[in-house]
Amino acid sequence: MPSYKFQYFDVRGRGELCRYVFVAAGKDFEDARVVREDWPSVKPSTPFGQMPVLEVDGKRLAQSQSIARFLAREFGIAGKDSWEQALVDQYMGLVDDMFKEAVKAFFESDEKKKAELQKNLGEVVFPRFLGQFETALENNGGKYLVGDSLTLADLAVVDCFDTPVQNFPSIMDKFPKMKAHREAITGLPTIAEYLKNRKRTDI
Amino acid sequence: MPSYKFQYFDVRGRGELCRYVFVAAGKDFEDARVVREDWPSVKPSTPFGQMPVLEVDGKRLAQSQSIARFLAREFGIAGKDSWEQALVDQYMGLVDDMFKEAVKAFFESDEKKKAELQKNLGEVVFPRFLGQFETALENNGGKYLVGDSLTLADLAVVDCFDTPVQNFPSIMDKFPKMKAHREAITGLPTIAEYLKNRKRTDI
Ligand SMILES: N[C@@H](CCC(=O)N[C@@H](CS)C(=O)NCC(=O)O)C(=O)O
Ligand SMILES: N[C@@H](CCC(=O)N[C@@H](CS)C(=O)NCC(=O)O)C(=O)O
Repeated sequence: MPSYKFQYFDVRGRGELCRYVFVAAGKDFEDARVVREDWPSVKPSTPFGQMPVLEVDGKRLAQSQSIARFLAREFGIAGKDSWEQALVDQYMGLVDDMFKEAVKAFFESDEKKKAELQKNLGEVVFPRFLGQFETALENNGGKYLVGDSLTLADLAVVDCFDTPVQNFPSIMDKFPKMKAHREAITGLPTIAEYLKNRKRTDI
Repeated sequence: MPSYKFQYFDVRGRGELCRYVFVAAGKDFEDARVVREDWPSVKPSTPFGQMPVLEVDGKRLAQSQSIARFLAREFGIAGKDSWEQALVDQYMGLVDDMFKEAVKAFFESDEKKKAELQKNLGEVVFPRFLGQFETALENNGGKYLVGDSLTLADLAVVDCFDTPVQNFPSIMDKFPKMKAHREAITGLPTIAEYLKNRKRTDI
């Protein structure tokens, strides 16, 4: 088995999905968390001056979603055929659309505008995406987003709602399938064990 | 061979990469361009209320990058193995990062701020990404971004610079490998023929 080193900041952010993939697949990896003070010296060694970065057998790969997809393929949770892979990808795209919206609020420097954006996330944006994922689950029988077993799409959806659920604890109340899905995936023994010990961070 | 219908607005935008994939692979498809007036009636029929959407044998797929990847897999230009696919994905991620920056200027409503953002795109943002792709080409021998033949990554990079090159015609002058790469890919017979007849749009 190849040896994996995964570099990211000490937050969930754009790194946590890759960690979830390792955890769900029960694979060992070096969870290399770079502290802010060390980042300037690490930055030049990364492919594009950013993290996350995966090192596998001396080769490096950047871009969170590419890393997650690569690992999912290696560990057999990327979708059973090309069409299932396409559907997994489709939900990754939707997750990314939601991230883009959330990031706008995160990077807003004007406190008043930031509060408005946050409110809008909780009341409009997250519910809109929740509705889309709810429908997707419904159309696929309710248990998994794609096919009849766990894929990267399920992990991506759990991950992308970690922060919304932390900030708006009742946000899933009107989305019973999403709520049940979240409980099922975070209740998988490997994931549950990981979450028990996960440090709480804002993002 | 399956029959493909590809729906998007009558611009390049987030649809052109998928069209490039069909064209480069020499595959027929229905290029269904939805005019703005018809969009409200088409919107509810799409998976997430947005385009592009691919219809293949009665099934539908949303999200531009998922569609492009799916087609690339079907047509054999997605990368020769899982690692090549990961590298292709990595460059798709970088392309998406650049799109995100460009879109900020596009959606800015304040004319003065928009002009500043545009200037910054031409002077700082696009050159930064050009530098990263230049290095990537250099590290892979100069001809292709990944492996030793055309992949989706090459098409994605050509596509993402179509608008920058239109707005800043000399933007590639300091990036000889990127310039040569662009000339080579747009000079492929299938692509060249397509470009000869392509309608000029702002985005
Ligand atoms: N599209 C990239 C974005 C990567 C990114 O924005 N990384 C940020 C942290 S989330 C970073 O490395 N920032 C530090 C810097 O740019 O110096 C991905 O998904 O991996
Ligand atoms: N992440 C999606 C974004 C799709 C998207 O933003 N589509 C826009 C056009 S570029 C759209 O359909 N807008 C019309 C609407 O939202 O009503 C993708 O890459 O396909």
